[in-house]
Amino acid sequence: MPSPTMRALVKTAPRPGLVLQDRPIPEIGPADVLIRVEKAGVCGTDLHIYEWDKWAQNRIHPPLIVGHEFMGRVEAVGAAVKLVVPDDRVSAEGHIADGTCFLCRTGEAHICERVKIIGVDRDGAFADYIVMPEVNVWKLDPNIPDEFAAIFDPLGNAVHTVMAAGVSTKSVVITGVGSIGLMAIPVARAAGAAAVYAIDVNPAKLELAKRLGADETFDARDPNLEDEILRRTNGDGADVLLEMSGSGQAIDNGLRMVRNGGRAALLGIPSDNININLAERIIFKGLTVLGINGRRMFETWYQTQALVKSGRVDLRPIITHILPFEEFDRAFSLMKSGEAAKIVLDVKGSK
Amino acid sequence: MPSPTMRALVKTAPRPGLVLQDRPIPEIGPADVLIRVEKAGVCGTDLHIYEWDKWAQNRIHPPLIVGHEFMGRVEAVGAAVKLVVPDDRVSAEGHIADGTCFLCRTGEAHICERVKIIGVDRDGAFADYIVMPEVNVWKLDPNIPDEFAAIFDPLGNAVHTVMAAGVSTKSVVITGVGSIGLMAIPVARAAGAAAVYAIDVNPAKLELAKRLGADETFDARDPNLEDEILRRTNGDGADVLLEMSGSGQAIDNGLRMVRNGGRAALLGIPSDNININLAERIIFKGLTVLGINGRRMFETWYQTQALVKSGRVDLRPIITHILPFEEFDRAFSLMKSGEAAKIVLDVKGSK
Amino acid sequence: MPSPTMRALVKTAPRPGLVLQDRPIPEIGPADVLIRVEKAGVCGTDLHIYEWDKWAQNRIHPPLIVGHEFMGRVEAVGAAVKLVVPDDRVSAEGHIADGTCFLCRTGEAHICERVKIIGVDRDGAFADYIVMPEVNVWKLDPNIPDEFAAIFDPLGNAVHTVMAAGVSTKSVVITGVGSIGLMAIPVARAAGAAAVYAIDVNPAKLELAKRLGADETFDARDPNLEDEILRRTNGDGADVLLEMSGSGQAIDNGLRMVRNGGRAALLGIPSDNININLAERIIFKGLTVLGINGRRMFETWYQTQALVKSGRVDLRPIITHILPFEEFDRAFSLMKSGEAAKIVLDVKGSK
Amino acid sequence: MPSPTMRALVKTAPRPGLVLQDRPIPEIGPADVLIRVEKAGVCGTDLHIYEWDKWAQNRIHPPLIVGHEFMGRVEAVGAAVKLVVPDDRVSAEGHIADGTCFLCRTGEAHICERVKIIGVDRDGAFADYIVMPEVNVWKLDPNIPDEFAAIFDPLGNAVHTVMAAGVSTKSVVITGVGSIGLMAIPVARAAGAAAVYAIDVNPAKLELAKRLGADETFDARDPNLEDEILRRTNGDGADVLLEMSGSGQAIDNGLRMVRNGGRAALLGIPSDNININLAERIIFKGLTVLGINGRRMFETWYQTQALVKSGRVDLRPIITHILPFEEFDRAFSLMKSGEAAKIVLDVKGSK
Repeated sequence: MPSPTMRALVKTAPRPGLVLQDRPIPEIGPADVLIRVEKAGVCGTDLHIYEWDKWAQNRIHPPLIVGHEFMGRVEAVGAAVKLVVPDDRVSAEGHIADGTCFLCRTGEAHICERVKIIGVDRDGAFADYIVMPEVNVWKLDPNIPDEFAAIFDPLGNAVHTVMAAGVSTKSVVITGVGSIGLMAIPVARAAGAAAVYAIDVNPAKLELAKRLGADETFDARDPNLEDEILRRTNGDGADVLLEMSGSGQAIDNGLRMVRNGGRAALLGIPSDNININLAERIIFKGLTVLGINGRRMFETWYQTQALVKSGRVDLRPIITHILPFEEFDRAFSLMKSGEAAKIVLDVKGSK
Repeated sequence: MPSPTMRALVKTAPRPGLVLQDRPIPEIGPADVLIRVEKAGVCGTDLHIYEWDKWAQNRIHPPLIVGHEFMGRVEAVGAAVKLVVPDDRVSAEGHIADGTCFLCRTGEAHICERVKIIGVDRDGAFADYIVMPEVNVWKLDPNIPDEFAAIFDPLGNAVHTVMAAGVSTKSVVITGVGSIGLMAIPVARAAGAAAVYAIDVNPAKLELAKRLGADETFDARDPNLEDEILRRTNGDGADVLLEMSGSGQAIDNGLRMVRNGGRAALLGIPSDNININLAERIIFKGLTVLGINGRRMFETWYQTQALVKSGRVDLRPIITHILPFEEFDRAFSLMKSGEAAKIVLDVKGSK
Repeated sequence: MPSPTMRALVKTAPRPGLVLQDRPIPEIGPADVLIRVEKAGVCGTDLHIYEWDKWAQNRIHPPLIVGHEFMGRVEAVGAAVKLVVPDDRVSAEGHIADGTCFLCRTGEAHICERVKIIGVDRDGAFADYIVMPEVNVWKLDPNIPDEFAAIFDPLGNAVHTVMAAGVSTKSVVITGVGSIGLMAIPVARAAGAAAVYAIDVNPAKLELAKRLGADETFDARDPNLEDEILRRTNGDGADVLLEMSGSGQAIDNGLRMVRNGGRAALLGIPSDNININLAERIIFKGLTVLGINGRRMFETWYQTQALVKSGRVDLRPIITHILPFEEFDRAFSLMKSGEAAKIVLDVKGSK
Repeated sequence: MPSPTMRALVKTAPRPGLVLQDRPIPEIGPADVLIRVEKAGVCGTDLHIYEWDKWAQNRIHPPLIVGHEFMGRVEAVGAAVKLVVPDDRVSAEGHIADGTCFLCRTGEAHICERVKIIGVDRDGAFADYIVMPEVNVWKLDPNIPDEFAAIFDPLGNAVHTVMAAGVSTKSVVITGVGSIGLMAIPVARAAGAAAVYAIDVNPAKLELAKRLGADETFDARDPNLEDEILRRTNGDGADVLLEMSGSGQAIDNGLRMVRNGGRAALLGIPSDNININLAERIIFKGLTVLGINGRRMFETWYQTQALVKSGRVDLRPIITHILPFEEFDRAFSLMKSGEAAKIVLDVKGSK
């Protein structure tokens, strides 16, 4: 039985910052799993909450333990749990679906309308322990290193986007190479893309994109960008767009670069309405546009596992920092400055 | 050998109206088919050209014979033609693709970037004769009545949209019931839709929608419209949206009514940019949005034939008028007033 | 709390026949639902068990309560159950999957390798009460009549087969019109088939097939059968084969009748190895052959519900008998003689 | 204008062997292209014809110029040809479809029922010149080396099989590593397979399989083979089977190794009927089985080009011999002995 309190990184009040404080260790129901967190990834969403921006002010209700990317070990299981036993090494899907609706019962739980996200809508993973419903738990393959396992959530976003688009033998444009856009590069390569073109405004990220396997990288502000892509694709345009930026301008440019009959998978989230020429960008082109959200439970997780376990995808260049849990302020500062691609907090090791 | 001149309905100069005049009968190359036109459908596009609106002013270069929906009989064939022989009863795909590009060679000729449309980019079908490349000709099944055959082009738009969306056992919302939206109703029913809800602002069209098999019809301005659709779909929203209006408001409303994970096929062409909340309407919902253009060559034509020939789709309620060729002015006036759903010109019979 | 005993139809020993006897009402765990059975369908599998044929001798371990098609009302629920409350009207998926394997976690629980089937591998539904795991329970729409709800299991087989094959605008051959083959006729029609051809050796079943909407029916022994189908399909062959007989001869004939590039969905289970010319029947033709098992959880159930609730599928001609529970011997005798298409036992009403 | 005669490798009479003799240079029609052959691949089919086995005796009608894998340069074009001009470097699809049937007009020309294959049903490519219909000609990318271009036909078989199966992130078993099976290895890797397991009885071919990128290779006679595959796939079985052997035993074994819900693409052609337990191998497993024939025109060709041009697929280890045209006897002898994987004849260079 775990000790009654634990460390947790908490948004204690509606203002910037997070507080590392002691909290009671949560209790489990019959269908729950108590997990001792070992490593946890820091996401852009966590930074929004840390900084208490407009989105966070509307969505987050303090007090809340943040964090949703993690791995650890099973500490205890409820009476009805069949999937894991104590000491199993696990990660978990952070989208907790209602389990009873049409979407949940037809393999689309990732877009359940009543989903609750850990670290956003309920207590999260930046803590010594977290409770997850059994159906959300993912038992880790022994060949997956801890730090990769800790970021299966964002890596899963990249895999979901790439696999929904379908890249096998295709030419692929990625607009926006933040951490998920970066991950999408080796994923698209491993999933069979014949060419991967990465576009961003940040030269350091583009440099990293190249190291991760992009065939070529481009500055999003290059006025000849569309021509450059056309020239590399026999004048047809790219087969596939993976939109990872959420920028209206990037979406418009990206859609221009896709060939007629191509596919565009949209993961980046615009903060506002966008203005779009639907006729020219989508209808006349006969495009297929896919909204991407979360990760398929658990098809995406199996795909992610296959890519990482086989060594087809190597995440080492993306994980730029592994920091002790208590250095969370530094983690957010590194993220904000753009110095870090992906930061993993070592929760257990630092105890 | 045909006589050297023929009647043709011609946009003679950059101004409103069309002129019925004598024109030389066109000559055929080795891969062409000369067709004697018997019946021809009048399309909204023809009305744009007749009225010489902004779109027409930008796109049309007089002199031009208009019209693109038709059926007739083969009068003569080029030396290399294998598909048909003189006197065969035929219709034809009006999108003339280049035949050599990536899209043409991979079954996507309907979105060929160098497509030329008859009656728009080159001489069309409102004439006694028209020349078509063999690859565009469609030999008619003897069980398809002439007047249905004459409108396989717009019916094909409806079939292409319905089949791309996939409606089998699904609930379907159709926004906009102009003539193609109306056709989409019996097509969706015959293709297996479990429920078809038609939305428009025109009560007469909604009345016709009901006669054509819509399970229910709604006024697009009804403030409770989204709730009404939700109520009929277990609170989930419709499985499929067929967007036939081109209205930005209808697109936004339509996307709201589709369930998470649903599919939206967009055929209606907005005349301007639209403003859209991509995050809420498409991305978070995990929607699949399909731009639809033309008809698949010739998968759509076979599907259309199957639906009409089997009697699963009955177009009689849609063809409100069959007029003699020389009453073309009346045809456009009936279309403009909204009195007509679909008008067919009897080109041959009136000679 | 239910009374401690209930009536149950039990295979008490390894020999022909079934015994209606008193059995303890089963207890539920925290994730289970206790259902009071109201109506139950009799399946060919039940007849195999009743007659104690070779298959039954190998598979069934008495004592066992048989029956797997049913509907009823929730009597009690375990502590963790969220989906239903007492008195809800329900049916249930009879394939109880392990819930933790790759297939179960990727939406393919219907082909879980460790599946247990009620009435075959564990106690079934021919009883006053049955316990089902919550994840198997299906809450019934109030517009679905009891007797239809009682046979959602076999109807779901038909729906699964039809939807996997994809019949929208297609020509469809059904080989074998036992009860599931018969159900497949209105299902294929409602799902959009442009033509449905039913083939069997039993004239009464073919007569029923016609009443259920088959466009034409054929005697499987007709030596010109293949030609007849070719003649109705422009010489190409049918787009789709739904194989419902399990006969090696029918499979071979059926595959001959499918066009190149067509699809064949196999539901009928051959009792022995079959001898097949793979090169001619499948490879050169570029066929897609689908093995079909059970029902997709719960995509098939939603589709089935949509078809029945909308009235697109009417099962009344198939349900030839509704008999009191205690007349089970007569039910099996009617099935064996071929007089009955589908028999429903009124379990509750007869108490 | 070419000289009036040319060298050609001809099956002159119904007996073993081929004769290099002078033949008239063929004439072209308005839609044809005359190609000067430069390099040509030798296929197992050519060996069957050379040896005059049972299949050849039934199918081949001497006199016939054999050979169907080749590349060269356009010598002359018919009046209606738009795709190429003289001196263009080209290969061509050897399946000459009728162009007018349902299959041809819906993107399935590769399975046209009236297809004629060059070098089998009409004169082929082991000659200085060959005439091809324009629609069969494939213009080569300048970055594709001649010897790779010469074998786009069998490479296309491998690509077609791999892409039809869908291997992205999947585990793949290949049964039979003759030259097409060998090609399927780098193709499957490049197309995104997470693991490729090659199975054959020939140790030299298995050695080559490893060099081409197979993750592991197995002797088909290994009694523990199924267990070995299960062990590497978490006990589930492989996601995908690519059957390249045509052996009934290999097909049965291969289907055993595929997981429930998996996909099997069959390219290898059994010379006889096979005996199969459809229930256990396909139906209960919910398998999808795909018959594969030829190459999709021209989707497969574009995919093949993308894989070779990008360098993702390197064919050098497979092309074990490039021989002068006149050494054709040696080529067949090397093929028969199993010393060669793929032999290319240098037709032009040796003149």
